[in-house]
Amino acid sequence: MRIGIIGAGALGLYYGAMLQRAGNDVHFLLRRDFEAINSKGLKVYSINGNFTLPEMKCYQSATDIGKVDLVLIGLKTFSNRDIINLVLPLAGHETAILTLQNGLGNEDLLATAFNAEQVLGGIAFLCSNRGEPGEVHHLGEGRIRLGELAGKKTERCQRIADLFCAAGVPCETSDDLTRIRWEKLVWNIPFNGLCALTGKTVTDLLHHPPTRQLVASMMHEVIAAANQQRIKTPIDADPFISRMLEMSAAMTGYQPSMMIDRIEGRPLELDAIYAIPLQRATEAEAVMPQVDMLHRLLSVGEN
Amino acid sequence: MRIGIIGAGALGLYYGAMLQRAGNDVHFLLRRDFEAINSKGLKVYSINGNFTLPEMKCYQSATDIGKVDLVLIGLKTFSNRDIINLVLPLAGHETAILTLQNGLGNEDLLATAFNAEQVLGGIAFLCSNRGEPGEVHHLGEGRIRLGELAGKKTERCQRIADLFCAAGVPCETSDDLTRIRWEKLVWNIPFNGLCALTGKTVTDLLHHPPTRQLVASMMHEVIAAANQQRIKTPIDADPFISRMLEMSAAMTGYQPSMMIDRIEGRPLELDAIYAIPLQRATEAEAVMPQVDMLHRLLSVGEN
Repeated sequence: MRIGIIGAGALGLYYGAMLQRAGNDVHFLLRRDFEAINSKGLKVYSINGNFTLPEMKCYQSATDIGKVDLVLIGLKTFSNRDIINLVLPLAGHETAILTLQNGLGNEDLLATAFNAEQVLGGIAFLCSNRGEPGEVHHLGEGRIRLGELAGKKTERCQRIADLFCAAGVPCETSDDLTRIRWEKLVWNIPFNGLCALTGKTVTDLLHHPPTRQLVASMMHEVIAAANQQRIKTPIDADPFISRMLEMSAAMTGYQPSMMIDRIEGRPLELDAIYAIPLQRATEAEAVMPQVDMLHRLLSVGEN
Repeated sequence: MRIGIIGAGALGLYYGAMLQRAGNDVHFLLRRDFEAINSKGLKVYSINGNFTLPEMKCYQSATDIGKVDLVLIGLKTFSNRDIINLVLPLAGHETAILTLQNGLGNEDLLATAFNAEQVLGGIAFLCSNRGEPGEVHHLGEGRIRLGELAGKKTERCQRIADLFCAAGVPCETSDDLTRIRWEKLVWNIPFNGLCALTGKTVTDLLHHPPTRQLVASMMHEVIAAANQQRIKTPIDADPFISRMLEMSAAMTGYQPSMMIDRIEGRPLELDAIYAIPLQRATEAEAVMPQVDMLHRLLSVGEN
């Protein structure tokens, strides 16, 4: 399968490398890492075993990649204004366009320029970061949950899931993309923003009872708003939150991506993780006052 | 009048110096600045004109000061566990004990060890900071509002106000200490904490509409809780908030004390400015959910 990777940060590089190693024809649009990878290949430091790809198909322009069967988008959402122009040269009528970006609004944005039937979304449970140019570090997890924007199981969706599984990336399909996106937000909304704002890790927030209670209370807000969306079965708040907190307790010292973005002076993914979910909540007559306050506090000083 | 200054940071040094310059017999309990002031005196850099006090009565132990007519307390409230022991050696039966500390709870704490009739509270509108040892900088304002803990106007209260006025410190009395404390909290609660948490100045928060709205909304919460306390006349929220925001707009680039405490790695005055006001609100069946969230976020990582 001919695959194009748009947004080859830690996520795009890791999944692209896994797919190439499994024998797929993968094409990477690169910025920072172009020189390093083009001359020396990519080193993947993974909890599942390190490996090197001595040669990768690297590009500095999407036009040079040409049409592919599958576009995999790992772009940070604050670069979404570029997304259509980057995907256009890769997308034929049969191309599947899969966004693994954070938060809400990414599939809808793609559906404004492409056939909505072509668009899929995925939630990546991946703990990874970039090292030096030409390196990527896979630190934990890696599984993906996939769904069609149209909200039904399709053969194509299953084929893509099989492709990831065959490449060593656990992947399951869902017939309710809206629900799985909101499920992820139940974690991302409190932890990404609170860690970015306070400079404290997931572990710090959980060990301090006043912030642990705040995290749980914000999770309740998000679930109440999620259950007002068009999802097939409601999320059962108490057991879901217990499971999330238990899972988070195992992430010793974890710094969510937004915390790292802030530490490194990058923009924050506020639209995808806060503004659009808040808007969807309002449209469904749900309120998320604590989420709203967090969004306001994160937004000061951002553009 | 024999006056003892406990807590000679920027506030204690500035007011003590003004009182000494006007001819009062002022005694300073010093820590950081003892050596510098004892050998070379104090330099006051003031918007109203610089001056030097070549000699000051400096002490390293409260016991050495002995009894005074007026104790003036400028201690940071996170050192309140020491306050009784520091004031005890200075307090005779006729001694007036005036706390100019931030927030709530300070007068009540003093009233647990001294006669409640001896205790006064004051709100200082002072913009000052310490420079090098032996220096203090008076950057703006300086006026004081004074009241008896017992909540009535007394001759003594007026005498202390006159003392400040005669020393060039505008000072007015109030017969409602609870109200003037809460009035100050309407400003301190949003701005101190939000600036400390975000690292942004008062001006930054006001120029960004989402945080400006948050500030106003928190002011509404505080006023609603204030109006549930035993105060003589309620605070009229809308005009009061308009006036506060207008006043704040003139404080270009201002960093509230809590923001500076956080930048310099000192503890924050969370009990006086958040925990006790939240408790008083709860006792009066008022809720301050945004204030509560801010308090939780400030408390993580504090002791």
